Amino acid sequence: MATIKDVAAEAGVSVATVSRVLNGKGYVHEETLMRVREAIEKLNYSPNEVARSLFKRESKLVGLLLPDITNPFFPELARGVEDELQKQGFRLLFGNSDEDPEKEKAYIDTFLQNQVVGLISATQAFSQLNDERPAIPTVLLDRTHEGSYTVYADGIEGGRIVARELVNRGSHNITVLKGPGHIQPVQDRFLGAVEVLASSNVNFQVIQMASLTYEEAEQRAKELFSQYPDTDGIFASNDITAAAVLHEALRIGKSIPDDVQIIGFDDIPMSRLLFPALSTIRQPVYEMGQQAAQLLLKLIKKEQVIEQNIQLPVSFIERNTTRKVKRNG
Amino acid sequence: MATIKDVAAEAGVSVATVSRVLNGKGYVHEETLMRVREAIEKLNYSPNEVARSLFKRESKLVGLLLPDITNPFFPELARGVEDELQKQGFRLLFGNSDEDPEKEKAYIDTFLQNQVVGLISATQAFSQLNDERPAIPTVLLDRTHEGSYTVYADGIEGGRIVARELVNRGSHNITVLKGPGHIQPVQDRFLGAVEVLASSNVNFQVIQMASLTYEEAEQRAKELFSQYPDTDGIFASNDITAAAVLHEALRIGKSIPDDVQIIGFDDIPMSRLLFPALSTIRQPVYEMGQQAAQLLLKLIKKEQVIEQNIQLPVSFIERNTTRKVKRNG
Repeated sequence: MATIKDVAAEAGVSVATVSRVLNGKGYVHEETLMRVREAIEKLNYSPNEVARSLFKRESKLVGLLLPDITNPFFPELARGVEDELQKQGFRLLFGNSDEDPEKEKAYIDTFLQNQVVGLISATQAFSQLNDERPAIPTVLLDRTHEGSYTVYADGIEGGRIVARELVNRGSHNITVLKGPGHIQPVQDRFLGAVEVLASSNVNFQVIQMASLTYEEAEQRAKELFSQYPDTDGIFASNDITAAAVLHEALRIGKSIPDDVQIIGFDDIPMSRLLFPALSTIRQPVYEMGQQAAQLLLKLIKKEQVIEQNIQLPVSFIERNTTRKVKRNG
Repeated sequence: MATIKDVAAEAGVSVATVSRVLNGKGYVHEETLMRVREAIEKLNYSPNEVARSLFKRESKLVGLLLPDITNPFFPELARGVEDELQKQGFRLLFGNSDEDPEKEKAYIDTFLQNQVVGLISATQAFSQLNDERPAIPTVLLDRTHEGSYTVYADGIEGGRIVARELVNRGSHNITVLKGPGHIQPVQDRFLGAVEVLASSNVNFQVIQMASLTYEEAEQRAKELFSQYPDTDGIFASNDITAAAVLHEALRIGKSIPDDVQIIGFDDIPMSRLLFPALSTIRQPVYEMGQQAAQLLLKLIKKEQVIEQNIQLPVSFIERNTTRKVKRNG
């Protein structure tokens, strides 16, 4: 049986060169490549492995699908993924699909043409592709779907915390700005909040939003105070919406948090620079990205995976859009 | 001389299949690939072109180097690049170098290993690589460097506008928070401002910042008002810094814009949600990304390029951190 040394001798090159050809890495002159291939064929050196190496280079590329990187929740998520992949020599191919299924499919197609070895998706559209999903290792990030590998934060508990904090700090007439129902983590935080509100002795109302964008946030914030002028506690579903609500409340002369308490969700970097600084629920965004990358790399390397669904905890960040409570008496 | 039809006949496959093999596009079974290659060799069909197609696939990948996508200026820049590339079937490989030259080189190396056909860099470290730059089409974005292809906004004029607006709206004691001097567009906005301030009848002072990050912005904002309690006009160099300054001013009881006027730079999406909404200089960020992608694609396709350096205009966005002036009497 021929060895790599035999191939090198036959081709008149070093073992290192043969190795480069086999692994498809580093620079090899075309003529050398031809010579090595001829030697491999002549000596019948492990032909299947060779064919694989020569014609199906294993890439070190991973595809990342996001809804929209200009939403300030996603850059930190992407950095977590990228930094973790980079440590292990993998690189990111990257696309924003705007949750448009056609764009989503186009990105997946070109990711596959560029031979990505794995995929991380933070889009809802991807979760719903079902049979059309590519047959490569895939992790859903900030999204959940039955039977998938997933990394996400505990939205239900996050929603519960918001409702509890608003009630405990004295709000009696609470407004929940509810994000799009088809996005599971957004739905979860709503369900958690309603679970607590329903069992509390407070009034509450729900405003449905079609998106969690800047534009809609500004519009809904205006509607909110004309529709519910007496609301004294607001769960804003994400920090952008909370910023818009805070802006509108101050504009119409409300005192924050005395007249109205506001709690956001995400803890984007800008939240602590708002004035008053925003009380919110912190999702461990960067860590979510890292964990998704770690899980994907395990799948790519066919290592054992113990947890198929990784849920990370959230926490309440108390700043100045909520009233102070005395703890322990 | 053999034709593609001869190759197809010899290999017992369709012309389309041979074409797929030659172009390295679409799915071809390994055995078929072998047969086509054998036929090509046997008939001696345009061997150099073939070798090139088989072993050096032309990718449709472009590398994008950013300092840090979590700085809210960059996501929109990246979207502009991506959306334009996508229209023409190109995809983005993407890396954040944190302006670390080692990380920068590591990214460039792996971009090249993955056969990117062009590069867009928004990092300063890249501008300074000089001889170590890769020999592929490259465009600098939001950065300038002699002899390079560049797309950037008119920072000098931006700086002039800020100084003029502060002075015309009544500030007499102006503080300039100056970003890192080695970043050319940041230096430009400073130079533009100083040019106007120096010829105006006002006092001004300069605070040097080592970065334009959230952390430093918060720290400098606190120092600013203890060091210069009587300042009545602030040019904050970017919107994050402006947000930190606004926060601190309100925290210590200043009335904005009556006591202090504040102008930022960039017009990130969050700026209009601050309260009072931030007056700032708008850079056409998304358009800058698009134009960089268009320029790069021209270079890749060896089309004629008329402008090597594309400078886009900036504009003053008047919101509520500056006083109102009566126009035309």
